[in-house]
Amino acid sequence: MGSSNPDDGVRQIGVSWPDQQSQEMQESIGQRFWRSIDWRRGAPVYRQLHARIRDAILSGALQPGARLPSARSLASQLATARGTIDAAYELLAGEDYVVTRGSGGTVVNPRLAGRLPRQRGHATGVSVGQPSVVRPVAVEPFRNGLPALDMFPRKLWSRLAARQARSASLAELLPADAAGSLALRRALVAYLGVARGIHCSVDNVLITAGFHGALGLIATAMRPGERVWMEEPGYFLARQALVAAGARPIPVPVDREGLVVEAGVRMARGARFALVTPSHQSPLGVTLSLTRRLALLAWADAADALILEDDYDGEFRYVGRPVPALKSLDRNGRVIYLGTFSKVLFPALRLGYMVVPDGAVARFRDMASALHPAPAPLTQAIVAEFLAEGHFARHIKRMRSLYAERRGAMVAAVAEVFGERLRVELQQGGMHILARPQSRASDVVLVRRAFEHGLAPAVLSPFHAERPKAAGLLLGFANTPAETARREVQRLWQALAEVKR
Amino acid sequence: MGSSNPDDGVRQIGVSWPDQQSQEMQESIGQRFWRSIDWRRGAPVYRQLHARIRDAILSGALQPGARLPSARSLASQLATARGTIDAAYELLAGEDYVVTRGSGGTVVNPRLAGRLPRQRGHATGVSVGQPSVVRPVAVEPFRNGLPALDMFPRKLWSRLAARQARSASLAELLPADAAGSLALRRALVAYLGVARGIHCSVDNVLITAGFHGALGLIATAMRPGERVWMEEPGYFLARQALVAAGARPIPVPVDREGLVVEAGVRMARGARFALVTPSHQSPLGVTLSLTRRLALLAWADAADALILEDDYDGEFRYVGRPVPALKSLDRNGRVIYLGTFSKVLFPALRLGYMVVPDGAVARFRDMASALHPAPAPLTQAIVAEFLAEGHFARHIKRMRSLYAERRGAMVAAVAEVFGERLRVELQQGGMHILARPQSRASDVVLVRRAFEHGLAPAVLSPFHAERPKAAGLLLGFANTPAETARREVQRLWQALAEVKR
Repeated sequence: MGSSNPDDGVRQIGVSWPDQQSQEMQESIGQRFWRSIDWRRGAPVYRQLHARIRDAILSGALQPGARLPSARSLASQLATARGTIDAAYELLAGEDYVVTRGSGGTVVNPRLAGRLPRQRGHATGVSVGQPSVVRPVAVEPFRNGLPALDMFPRKLWSRLAARQARSASLAELLPADAAGSLALRRALVAYLGVARGIHCSVDNVLITAGFHGALGLIATAMRPGERVWMEEPGYFLARQALVAAGARPIPVPVDREGLVVEAGVRMARGARFALVTPSHQSPLGVTLSLTRRLALLAWADAADALILEDDYDGEFRYVGRPVPALKSLDRNGRVIYLGTFSKVLFPALRLGYMVVPDGAVARFRDMASALHPAPAPLTQAIVAEFLAEGHFARHIKRMRSLYAERRGAMVAAVAEVFGERLRVELQQGGMHILARPQSRASDVVLVRRAFEHGLAPAVLSPFHAERPKAAGLLLGFANTPAETARREVQRLWQALAEVKR
Repeated sequence: MGSSNPDDGVRQIGVSWPDQQSQEMQESIGQRFWRSIDWRRGAPVYRQLHARIRDAILSGALQPGARLPSARSLASQLATARGTIDAAYELLAGEDYVVTRGSGGTVVNPRLAGRLPRQRGHATGVSVGQPSVVRPVAVEPFRNGLPALDMFPRKLWSRLAARQARSASLAELLPADAAGSLALRRALVAYLGVARGIHCSVDNVLITAGFHGALGLIATAMRPGERVWMEEPGYFLARQALVAAGARPIPVPVDREGLVVEAGVRMARGARFALVTPSHQSPLGVTLSLTRRLALLAWADAADALILEDDYDGEFRYVGRPVPALKSLDRNGRVIYLGTFSKVLFPALRLGYMVVPDGAVARFRDMASALHPAPAPLTQAIVAEFLAEGHFARHIKRMRSLYAERRGAMVAAVAEVFGERLRVELQQGGMHILARPQSRASDVVLVRRAFEHGLAPAVLSPFHAERPKAAGLLLGFANTPAETARREVQRLWQALAEVKR
């Protein structure tokens, strides 16, 4: 996992190149060089490079606007993997030290001029000069997993947030419920009933640090080596999280009706967990059919298993009405529903929630208290207010028609610009479209080229745990206004065309 | 664990009575009754009672100001354990449905009058009417683990918070670093260097959901059944968290010099973790001596073990200067330092941090991304600003002299009011004083009586994992102004005197 922040529920790849995995091997090659610059045992090479460049910027040795060597030439110079350099650069970009300008290369962030810290001083207590770094505001075209940030009601949000921040009483300084604030849980109970067909009480709802926080909480209920059904292909960051938690993912194939439940039964009938995306399979976009839903529930009953329903963007469906959550069919307490605000509000909230069956409430509350407390009450209060005042429902409704428009524009543009060279497999929901290149080029190579042009589609093959890894591009459309879709798709075409040269 | 929110780093007990553990046994006794009211398989009895009373309040069946039956009489009426009723009442109190008025009993929160929700409606989308409940603002005298909330600079804090909330740019909606914000980590590096003698880089710092969130992250590095040295007596919520994480705590005795390292070596030389509170042992208050610090580090070197330094209130020391953290002596990457803002700012922040050795940085960052992402950037930004502008250092300095004064006043009042009947073992730091009753009464019984009088000292015996469990009262002094100390101690005397009658 090369990226420093494969963030909560963000279905994006692109920053995590396969060849980063050869990083450790490369360490021996470049060791002499690294030792000469700042060798610290244990820190991976890309972090050392990151630290060295960062220090050079902070000390003034590298000035704002200065161009860094291209990743390719630096990799060859240092005899290390290209991915190592990419990872370091991405880390620096994530922290605003550098900005990447497509084919213009990577430069020290010009906005840092005049804002760099004074010498790191110890003189004045804990006060440190810090650059008030302004992040570059553009979201790269085609980036996956982000809602339309240009249309997020920021002013309204800030007003609500500021109001909550100001109104905190003394009592709101006291320890808060580790399962989450009552106001937010109450608002979610109402929302889930109306929007997702889930009827539950506030006791069943736990607030989590996003999707990954929920996985962490669930992982406490898993034994080491626990077998967990995972969709194949499936959301690879979830797979990595399960592996990190000590579980053993079982790759159960997905077809046009979603997870092939019979295959799962054949492969691991006795597994105790299944992680699925029934509304809009990640990444293929298919919807789990009703037959399969019932089969999955029947298996869980028979196997005494829990189904983890990752409903990351079930709100967005453009054909007919949103499909009710699998959880709405759950009669025997087999489904843990996982929701997130990353897709319907914004990822930096890092806020999610779980609906757990009655029988699991006490255990999950205890584990939340012990190891996974809910996030700070302020964040929860802002979101609760946003829901309670009706902004949430309105926002989702607005985004649904906006996305329908942006999706339509992008599909049309792809057909027009690429013709047969990129085949779109259109599904009924979600925030990206899946496009299959009709060439033999690796999708990783294609997407890397797109990245060099400042475009950020995601790549399908890493979603596979096993071979064959089907090739595909995942084109996020949420942040591309309909009127610019054709231009951006044109840019993508130009970028991909270079691969064949 | 009866309490619904044994919260981050809060050293308080009192709400977790031993007899709650007999709850499950009692379920069979009262089953007929419970089934008649709202039996749901799997939900513990106290939660059902909580739900029933809550619903009665929300429906208007129980009006604001109405008195609930005393816990004792309700327990006998329902043939269930008293602790079960206490737990339900405490849950209701935590959610502001009821308020407890010492000997005045438990009543439906009078402030709810006119604020109860309209009928739970589905008509208007996700908007639900909710009571804008105002929490009762008083902190019970002697409560442990809370900083002086009366002296927290709330206006300043709210202003900073509102400013951060308003200034969020579009880019701040994007996914954030799972290890925490760079600004906060940078501010912490400076603070820890000056205040705790810890020299580290921002890469070593990870932001967590308080102390318990940090334990959750560390638990991912533990094998099932992993032996962990724990102080005996020691912070029981940490012990519960380790057990929840699948670890096996080894109770290593504490004497006047802190953890008896040789005893730990005898008991479990090969353990791979030790959780210690070197600055101010929880709950005894002793400081780990330098000899023991070095012995502990030497053991960790020999055993290839990690020491978890829980520095929950190391900032507060009233005799001489704060002792540098154990981490400051760590030459071989053996110490993970755990800090929290719960004690120096306020618990509801639910914000903490870890300083991990270089060799563990990559692994912990990966685990944070996968299962334990840092809290929302907004919270972090507010705290970072508070540190960067120097408010944090000033606040700690002010609290240090305030606590010295409040501590002195309480010690004097206890000596005056109790004389020999309560012997204070005064240590050099912390936010509570340890007092040993010179009677044979159980400290649990004493503290329960104090609770009935609206006082909230904590009780020593549950800090022991093994027998003999020494008796003691932990008297939090941070929230008792010097001028009221004598009055509150007098109230405590009256409450405890009843036990002998």
